[in-house]
Amino acid sequence: MKATVLVRPKQGILDPQGEAVESALGHLGFAVRDARVGRVVDLEVEASDPAAARAEVERMCEQLLANPLVESYEISLDG
Amino acid sequence: MKATVLVRPKQGILDPQGEAVESALGHLGFAVRDARVGRVVDLEVEASDPAAARAEVERMCEQLLANPLVESYEISLDG
Repeated sequence: MKATVLVRPKQGILDPQGEAVESALGHLGFAVRDARVGRVVDLEVEASDPAAARAEVERMCEQLLANPLVESYEISLDG
Repeated sequence: MKATVLVRPKQGILDPQGEAVESALGHLGFAVRDARVGRVVDLEVEASDPAAARAEVERMCEQLLANPLVESYEISLDG
């Protein structure tokens, strides 16, 4: 089963990469605000059903894919 | 208008970060394949309507957010 995980800096947490992107876009003439940069992880997970797959990916997030202190994550499954 | 951009390594392009994630997950006992790591960029863009916002974000992708040679991007808009 294909899973996509979005890992983002939590609100209130400094995001230097987002600030750099926002500043660079501004210099290019784009009017943007509140740029935040995170990671997207796509993977294929072995699981018997969507609930099991989601639980497995949640464990991956807690153990490796995200730092729960400063990042939030969002899981979506696709077939 | 809030926009979310997913930037991913194109198929066939080496993705060392994805390989590292896959290997680390394997060592933790997770059965995963085809891990790929990209970026998610959230930003607030000034535009009069969704079509204009999408066109603006596409220009940002071409100029800064993605490297079209090796990365693909996917834009979604939300209010």
